[in-house]
Amino acid sequence: MSKWVYTFGDGKAEGSAKDKNLLGGKGANLAEMSSLGIPVPPGFTISTEVCTYYYENGETYPPDLKQQVEAGVAEIERIMGGKFGAEQGPLVLVSVRSGARASMPGMMDTVLNLGLNDKSVLNLIAQTGDERFAYDSYRRFIQMYSDVGLDVSKDKFEHLLEGLKDKIGKHLDVELTAADWKVLVEEYKQEVKKNLGRDFPQDPWEQLWGGIGAVFGSWMNKRAITYRKLNNLPDHWGTAVNVQAMVFGNMGDDCATGVCFSRNPSTGENLFYGEYLVNAQGEDVVAGIRTPQCLSVAEKAIVGSTLPSMEEVLPSLYTELVAIRDRLEKHYRDMQDMEFTIQRNKLWMLQTRNGKRTAAAALRIAVEMCEEGLIDRAEAVRRVEPAQLDQLLHPMLDPKAKKEVLGKGLPASPGAASGQIVFSADDAEAWAKGGKKVILTRIETSPEDIGGMHVAQGILTTRGGMTSHAAVVARGMGTPCVAGAGELKVDYAAKTLTTKAGVVLKEGDVITIDGASGQILKGEVPKIQPEMTGNFGKLMEYVDGIRTLKVRANAETPLDASTARQFGAEGIGLCRTEHMFFDPKRIIHVRQMIVAETEADRRAALDNLLPYQRGDFVELFTIMEGLPVTIRLLDPPLHEFLPHKEDEMAEVAKAAGVTVQKVKERTAMLHEANPMLGHRGCRLGVTYPEIYEMQCRAIFEAVAEVKMKGLTVLPEVMLPLIATKAEFDRLAAMVHKVAAEVMARTGAKFDYLVGTMIELPRAALIADKIAEGAQFFSFGTNDLTQTTYGLSRDDAGNFLVPYQELGVIPNDPFQTLDTEGVGQLVQIAVERGRKTRPDIKLGICGEHGGDPASVHFCHNVGLNYVSCSPYRVPIARLAAAQAALGAGTIAHTA
Amino acid sequence: MSKWVYTFGDGKAEGSAKDKNLLGGKGANLAEMSSLGIPVPPGFTISTEVCTYYYENGETYPPDLKQQVEAGVAEIERIMGGKFGAEQGPLVLVSVRSGARASMPGMMDTVLNLGLNDKSVLNLIAQTGDERFAYDSYRRFIQMYSDVGLDVSKDKFEHLLEGLKDKIGKHLDVELTAADWKVLVEEYKQEVKKNLGRDFPQDPWEQLWGGIGAVFGSWMNKRAITYRKLNNLPDHWGTAVNVQAMVFGNMGDDCATGVCFSRNPSTGENLFYGEYLVNAQGEDVVAGIRTPQCLSVAEKAIVGSTLPSMEEVLPSLYTELVAIRDRLEKHYRDMQDMEFTIQRNKLWMLQTRNGKRTAAAALRIAVEMCEEGLIDRAEAVRRVEPAQLDQLLHPMLDPKAKKEVLGKGLPASPGAASGQIVFSADDAEAWAKGGKKVILTRIETSPEDIGGMHVAQGILTTRGGMTSHAAVVARGMGTPCVAGAGELKVDYAAKTLTTKAGVVLKEGDVITIDGASGQILKGEVPKIQPEMTGNFGKLMEYVDGIRTLKVRANAETPLDASTARQFGAEGIGLCRTEHMFFDPKRIIHVRQMIVAETEADRRAALDNLLPYQRGDFVELFTIMEGLPVTIRLLDPPLHEFLPHKEDEMAEVAKAAGVTVQKVKERTAMLHEANPMLGHRGCRLGVTYPEIYEMQCRAIFEAVAEVKMKGLTVLPEVMLPLIATKAEFDRLAAMVHKVAAEVMARTGAKFDYLVGTMIELPRAALIADKIAEGAQFFSFGTNDLTQTTYGLSRDDAGNFLVPYQELGVIPNDPFQTLDTEGVGQLVQIAVERGRKTRPDIKLGICGEHGGDPASVHFCHNVGLNYVSCSPYRVPIARLAAAQAALGAGTIAHTA
Repeated sequence: MSKWVYTFGDGKAEGSAKDKNLLGGKGANLAEMSSLGIPVPPGFTISTEVCTYYYENGETYPPDLKQQVEAGVAEIERIMGGKFGAEQGPLVLVSVRSGARASMPGMMDTVLNLGLNDKSVLNLIAQTGDERFAYDSYRRFIQMYSDVGLDVSKDKFEHLLEGLKDKIGKHLDVELTAADWKVLVEEYKQEVKKNLGRDFPQDPWEQLWGGIGAVFGSWMNKRAITYRKLNNLPDHWGTAVNVQAMVFGNMGDDCATGVCFSRNPSTGENLFYGEYLVNAQGEDVVAGIRTPQCLSVAEKAIVGSTLPSMEEVLPSLYTELVAIRDRLEKHYRDMQDMEFTIQRNKLWMLQTRNGKRTAAAALRIAVEMCEEGLIDRAEAVRRVEPAQLDQLLHPMLDPKAKKEVLGKGLPASPGAASGQIVFSADDAEAWAKGGKKVILTRIETSPEDIGGMHVAQGILTTRGGMTSHAAVVARGMGTPCVAGAGELKVDYAAKTLTTKAGVVLKEGDVITIDGASGQILKGEVPKIQPEMTGNFGKLMEYVDGIRTLKVRANAETPLDASTARQFGAEGIGLCRTEHMFFDPKRIIHVRQMIVAETEADRRAALDNLLPYQRGDFVELFTIMEGLPVTIRLLDPPLHEFLPHKEDEMAEVAKAAGVTVQKVKERTAMLHEANPMLGHRGCRLGVTYPEIYEMQCRAIFEAVAEVKMKGLTVLPEVMLPLIATKAEFDRLAAMVHKVAAEVMARTGAKFDYLVGTMIELPRAALIADKIAEGAQFFSFGTNDLTQTTYGLSRDDAGNFLVPYQELGVIPNDPFQTLDTEGVGQLVQIAVERGRKTRPDIKLGICGEHGGDPASVHFCHNVGLNYVSCSPYRVPIARLAAAQAALGAGTIAHTA
Repeated sequence: MSKWVYTFGDGKAEGSAKDKNLLGGKGANLAEMSSLGIPVPPGFTISTEVCTYYYENGETYPPDLKQQVEAGVAEIERIMGGKFGAEQGPLVLVSVRSGARASMPGMMDTVLNLGLNDKSVLNLIAQTGDERFAYDSYRRFIQMYSDVGLDVSKDKFEHLLEGLKDKIGKHLDVELTAADWKVLVEEYKQEVKKNLGRDFPQDPWEQLWGGIGAVFGSWMNKRAITYRKLNNLPDHWGTAVNVQAMVFGNMGDDCATGVCFSRNPSTGENLFYGEYLVNAQGEDVVAGIRTPQCLSVAEKAIVGSTLPSMEEVLPSLYTELVAIRDRLEKHYRDMQDMEFTIQRNKLWMLQTRNGKRTAAAALRIAVEMCEEGLIDRAEAVRRVEPAQLDQLLHPMLDPKAKKEVLGKGLPASPGAASGQIVFSADDAEAWAKGGKKVILTRIETSPEDIGGMHVAQGILTTRGGMTSHAAVVARGMGTPCVAGAGELKVDYAAKTLTTKAGVVLKEGDVITIDGASGQILKGEVPKIQPEMTGNFGKLMEYVDGIRTLKVRANAETPLDASTARQFGAEGIGLCRTEHMFFDPKRIIHVRQMIVAETEADRRAALDNLLPYQRGDFVELFTIMEGLPVTIRLLDPPLHEFLPHKEDEMAEVAKAAGVTVQKVKERTAMLHEANPMLGHRGCRLGVTYPEIYEMQCRAIFEAVAEVKMKGLTVLPEVMLPLIATKAEFDRLAAMVHKVAAEVMARTGAKFDYLVGTMIELPRAALIADKIAEGAQFFSFGTNDLTQTTYGLSRDDAGNFLVPYQELGVIPNDPFQTLDTEGVGQLVQIAVERGRKTRPDIKLGICGEHGGDPASVHFCHNVGLNYVSCSPYRVPIARLAAAQAALGAGTIAHTA
């Protein structure tokens, strides 16, 4: 005889948490709790093997199942001291629930109160003295059972209920009396008869087998099949069926029901936390009709409740519950979310599971449980979701504040900010000088706006995606940003921002943007400031002890560099030298250089720039003392530096000694149809070698100067947009030449590396050849994604958003590295690069360096480091540690 | 004793043409000729092994070399009946020349007239009675020998020569007398003494060893090393040294010298062809000071020469020469380019090699030699260079015409054309209607210009590369085009074209453009029309018997399709449906569709387009009956179809029932920063499925219609810009759905394929997955090059031109497929696609499909077909045959 049925209850169980495949998740957990001696309503689980048998044998059961189910029911009766469907004496009712290996919430069927019929309902009245409760329970059972077991849609019953309410002029369920429910029970039964041509089944055993059949049948209903398909769950797993004694918290004042958390899920504080109600059903606690009461006196004080706590009302049961809480938390080694019911002074635990929690709570619980010795450091690290850590590093909107939403864009850079709207970078700078807080509001931003972006509290754009200029720069600066809010219209001329609803905001109006949700809100919304608590530091200590992947930051300003060090960056992985060109004192020389007709004129303009660049590098090297600094030579196309306004053009013309017409011609000549694929990166270095020469001179002179002060400098010169070995070799030779010159001139000796970005598919494919000269590769996965996918991050929003909605792509490939496509090229380049040069240093400096899933990929593919925005450094560190642990996050943050 | 020296002469030789590695190219060929019984001045070759020995042994010779060289000289003396450096009696002088395996023209040293000294020069006078010749020969020897053997720069001797001329008031060498040369000989010898502190060597044997040492030494001179590095020739090959008796054609009237071709190198006619001069040196024939004379009487008649031919002047020697010509051509099985010298009525052959020839001659010679049985068909096919075939398919400038060059651009589409300049497509159409021939002159062209491009004789643009819109469309239409002529300035407002030199051409001025050279010429230049001679057809017959790769054409108009069939296309590999959208009757519906706000409005506009598209396909399928037609669904971003002019916008607004403001907003919304990477290709199909649905309906309704006429239709629906499997699957399902609908509605049954372009690196990388649904891949190597390389073909000219000049890239990657990078992705996709679907059809439809080197790659990588512009179909067919023969072209076209 095969074993098909596994009982639990009364401190014992035939299964355990390990038997998920056989008993399903719910059955296994009930068995586990029962074995622990937790008071669980007794019951039994019909295994998933029965489901498999059922579908393999024309929807029939194994012959010996009947006997085992009957034995199971007998065991329930024994423990509960009653009889299933009894017409007299102690009554046992049961629930029949599905339970597959993986949670499939709401996809399959459930029947409650099974065992009620025209006679046992009278017995229930006799047992409880509550006629209203009994008839309400009975009509619920008829409705549920008919819907799932008899194929009579629940709409028909809802319709009858509405009809009755209309007839007697009542609106809410609670207004209905026992008599009303009794009438409805009759109507329900007639409806069933009308539909089926026979009476609603009165035999409890017929009901039970009907319920079991309904649950097994629901494994193959349409929504369950679709759900499994979407979640890649195989059909052959099957579901188990759990038959369990019903317990009621609403049979009188010696009854109660509640939900509780073993620790505070908002703050993580190690304080028992929950709510309960006397004489109530579980749904009453959450429905909000009655005000739930606190569990403990301590909790009462914290939330300021005046209602009596369970600790006061039911002290011994409270003590029992606290003991169970301790036991479960120790057993599961995690914060538990529990449900309980007290039926006539007897405590029953209905469920326990790992509780959802906020990021702050996740951090605190992980660290404190580690300190309590409940979990080890590795486990603590696994418990915190890296993406959520971001919240802890930025101000956020007060969840209790009132909000008026004006529109929504992409959550491009986290944090909340309020300020007055201004529509140009110049205005932002002017207003900020006047002590005002501004939100820079633009259709899109360009490198010219960098000054205004720096002084703004937040940045709002109506065009561009998560990796548009505004978004990338804002994340780099840690400034909140909402990007691509296409439903808002900016009118630069009128200086207005118009919402979809037609609300017109003028320059100077105050708004708040929430970079975490993408919302744009009216007025100033109160915010909560981040706290870098001791727990954060402790977690980072665990993290650093585990991870092998280094984490660097993308930074070029002294402020960014300092922030990066503070957040634990182990170097700079990407210093974008062009950001240094936009300073007002410098830009004129840059422009002069661009409009120059001859190399001599270009060199003259570059000579003026050199002292500025050198000064930048001296500062940067000093801040980053002892850590590597990767400096990317000029990358963007030259036209990005040219002015578009007439007066600025005149200024450039004057400085360069040419006509305005010449400046315009030069601008037109530099115009490109597809600037992303244009004359930029090392292509500038090859065609205008004097630019890169000047940059290298500035770098190495700075190295010499800082080194002479006795500081350690580790410069790495990076050539962008390399597509061919010849480009690399030619420019690397130039770098070495300039380094040698500077050493000879200054007498300083210093080490440095020369390497390249790998940001074009071609570079990845010939990485073996490039590595002959390159000492490091840094994967520029932004551009590599653009070229591999044929996407421009400035434009892609138009179809990437519908693509995600249609399920054509799983994620925005600019946020999470496309491992299927782009990842292949990274892997190819890693393998080929290492084959040529086993000690080649490999890193990533695209936006993906701060994305946890992408960090996992980088770890697995064997990179040495990731580099990301300073504010994402802690996130990357945590993700790197989790990757080293070889596990995904245990994601139960709220 | 090792053998170091190999003699030749007197109808014998110790080596042969096979011994190139040992004897070098020159030595092996001299041996070969000698063995054939051709009268070659006798000599010997010191093998390359001596060179290796020399460098491996501290620049010393093998001990037994001396004896072998002496024996070699004795053999020369025996055959020539004289003595090396003789002071009395018959005098033998020798030349010492280098000769490596591969030709290294001008890289190594040569010494002539070796054996002359103060005494033998007197003997030379005695032997020839020509004092001037003797001293001139001596001073040349001193100069050459001192330069290469004694390290006294030849500049010093030139300086002395100039000094003498100044002193005696003469300008040309020919004006100098015997006495002058004799004076100079003295000055030269003093110069040597001054530099070396010793006399110029008088001993012929010392001279000989010095000469040999100089040649071996020149293997390692700087320019030879550089040349080898550039051409990937290994240093260890070494050079041989050839020592050969001097013969002189200028010793009197029984002497002569000449060059000849075994067939006419211009036309290919099988007629002995050449020039000679009595009492002259080789350089006199080519120097143009004396008028060379014809070899034969027949040739005299053809070129209209009145000077006596060799056939008349030296009849027996002529007969001997003709016999040698026959012998050499038969032996080498190719047209020979020969040099000869007659010294005292004795004919000596100095050299023979395969002759350079024009494309027309190459074709004729190959076919005629094949018909004569001299070579087989495979060999004939190998003999014609595919790229040159292009000349034969288009009119070309008369080489004899006078030309005034106004400027130069890129040779974007072959053929020459003349016409009046117009500056807009509309003007081109208007003028053409008025019967005028126009050259459409634009900064750049866009799809809107297609009408004007069609009627223009030629197209000239000042911006864009070889694969700019103008270039691609022009090649497709077979219209001559010069693109990217950046040194010319177009002013649309003034309607002028200004050259670099400041010449201003106005609208209506006549110019000629040469799409073969890229030149822009003043006025109308006479042209030669192409002739599709019978030889062309015969060669194509050979070609088709050999090749395995199919050749299709990129075509969408009936004219293009007919042309393609005529040129032997085996189907259409790329029909770009968007070209069908620009017709004036249709564009308004397209625009209406684009500005529509709702799907319903879009569908209404598309319904209007459907009959046009269906009509196009009916026509195309009828022309291409029995051959496959690959139709690419809409590819370009929608904004390409929108108008930019105010009045056109108004028209669109009216048609669509919206405001002009709305049209402008829509245009602004569709603007993209990088349209190449934008919302185009299948991305349109996914987000606006109704567009692709309409196109599929038009295709399949046309299939049904043509099939009902009893014709065979083989449609292949191609989805562009696929990056993910989900895109492909989604759209392929739509294609199948529409096909089923049309079959059900019309009752027609038809076959069709659904496939995709592979034009993004990502698609290549996941080709295995895409092939699960795709029945064919067509490599869109234009876009694949753009994305793999990160280049935009619209902009890349700015750096691709300097890149080629600097040697950073070997070719324009848009012309010749970048096999190192892009080719890797093609290979990956081929392998992965075939792994999933072994019978998948693989082709290429980028511009590379018509490039011979790229066709080779396509053959080698195992594609089924290439597709190219109709006019390039014959070129692709020839290249495909050569690829099947597994050989590169034997490139000796002029």
